[in-house]
Amino acid sequence: MRRHRCNQVIRSESDTESDTDAETMKCISCKEEYGSRDAGTCKECYEEASETEEELKREIEDLKAKVAFLRFWSPLDHAHRGSTTTPGPFFSDVVLIASDDGSPGFPPVPVPANKAVLVNRSPVFKAMLENEMEESRSGTIKVSDVSYDALRAFVNYLYTAEACLDEQMACDLLVLAEKYQVKHLKGYCEKFLVSKLNCDNSLMSYAFAHQHNAKLVLDAALCLITDNMDKLTKREEYIELVEKDPRLVVEIYEAYLSKQVNTAAHKDCSMKS
Amino acid sequence: MRRHRCNQVIRSESDTESDTDAETMKCISCKEEYGSRDAGTCKECYEEASETEEELKREIEDLKAKVAFLRFWSPLDHAHRGSTTTPGPFFSDVVLIASDDGSPGFPPVPVPANKAVLVNRSPVFKAMLENEMEESRSGTIKVSDVSYDALRAFVNYLYTAEACLDEQMACDLLVLAEKYQVKHLKGYCEKFLVSKLNCDNSLMSYAFAHQHNAKLVLDAALCLITDNMDKLTKREEYIELVEKDPRLVVEIYEAYLSKQVNTAAHKDCSMKS
Repeated sequence: MRRHRCNQVIRSESDTESDTDAETMKCISCKEEYGSRDAGTCKECYEEASETEEELKREIEDLKAKVAFLRFWSPLDHAHRGSTTTPGPFFSDVVLIASDDGSPGFPPVPVPANKAVLVNRSPVFKAMLENEMEESRSGTIKVSDVSYDALRAFVNYLYTAEACLDEQMACDLLVLAEKYQVKHLKGYCEKFLVSKLNCDNSLMSYAFAHQHNAKLVLDAALCLITDNMDKLTKREEYIELVEKDPRLVVEIYEAYLSKQVNTAAHKDCSMKS
Repeated sequence: MRRHRCNQVIRSESDTESDTDAETMKCISCKEEYGSRDAGTCKECYEEASETEEELKREIEDLKAKVAFLRFWSPLDHAHRGSTTTPGPFFSDVVLIASDDGSPGFPPVPVPANKAVLVNRSPVFKAMLENEMEESRSGTIKVSDVSYDALRAFVNYLYTAEACLDEQMACDLLVLAEKYQVKHLKGYCEKFLVSKLNCDNSLMSYAFAHQHNAKLVLDAALCLITDNMDKLTKREEYIELVEKDPRLVVEIYEAYLSKQVNTAAHKDCSMKS
């Protein structure tokens, strides 16, 4: 076993040598005294654990460097330079257009990109651009039902694996990630939305997750809803959901029921034991 | 503090409760009994440490997923498909050519690439392709003093951050990484070469590292050399090096001298204390 580099250990050895009381020891990590009842690990296992931690941290540093090497600059930096459509220093060979951008009157602003990047990130773009389809010939990909900002953020993520999310943007990007099968982005948005779940948005999130088959959000929302059935069934969103999509509401009640059954069964067996 | 999920702990609690002897405890980690002298951590610190380890492992998983998302398929997969020069499914817009490939008679085989990738990975390619230089206009980048295989491996690394190394390939790629300022690849090759250092190749590695300013290899080789001066100064490579580049040999002796001085000083002060 390699020698341990953490000088905490060296200090603690002298501690324990000077330790006359056999019942109390000093913890190498927190330096507190403790009795045999609160004993954790022996010194050797502590040293091994600290080495493991150091190795994991080194691996993290290596992976971060790899990510920094593989990520592109944001194409938006280039877009800002002006010429977005013609191949400039960015060597763009395709543009994406939010075909029905929410700003009527103005012509939609194209988002420049590289075919090579798009086909690497999305199997849908791959099929679209590698087989001589309209988009491949024209070098223009129309994306419907999306704002310019969401499309920009989407393309930006394909280059950088980074996005600045709020709840609206997370929903918009999740829809695009689902449409173009960008798994990594979808997972990223799902985690964000789960972190923002609360009683107020649980029903809407559940419906949204159902529509775009976001399993993570679906399960988290369903769990939250079934924990607060009495409150939520009095809300307007609930009544709306019953109107709009009763099947979803049925699924909620089914989940609620099976949860109660399980809890009952659990109580039952814990009483027996 | 969050509840600890590791069931080892739950088990160990019952262990310590049934533990009548106050002087010996059971290590939660290795399950061995130990006395107070060999005490490592208290239980709480053990639990915190295990949680930290779990978190680090989760972070590693996330970073690995990010790398998998950002890396490209190898352009060589496309090269194998035949048409390497004309933009095919790979959307290549530039080719690299090993201008003096070691196979006379045959025309050099071009390695297809994307300008967008090259400029993102190398400041040298960036300057070359963004300013209307010959390479940018012709779409052909001639690379001198390199084999076709090394050039292929180099371009492949720019897309995948992966390379299959032996000592020769590591040296070839290090030279290219230095020439085109691809720091990440240079570090990768240096680590590999350091791991292959031994008495037999230490002098050649030292000379090579010096020529291509590979600091990691240089320091490691110098350390190995100065530890084996008596052996190495009898070798042919040593005599050759004195012939070819005496300044390098002087630097070796200077390092050797300062090492001896330090060791002496260290012995001296440790005798005093």
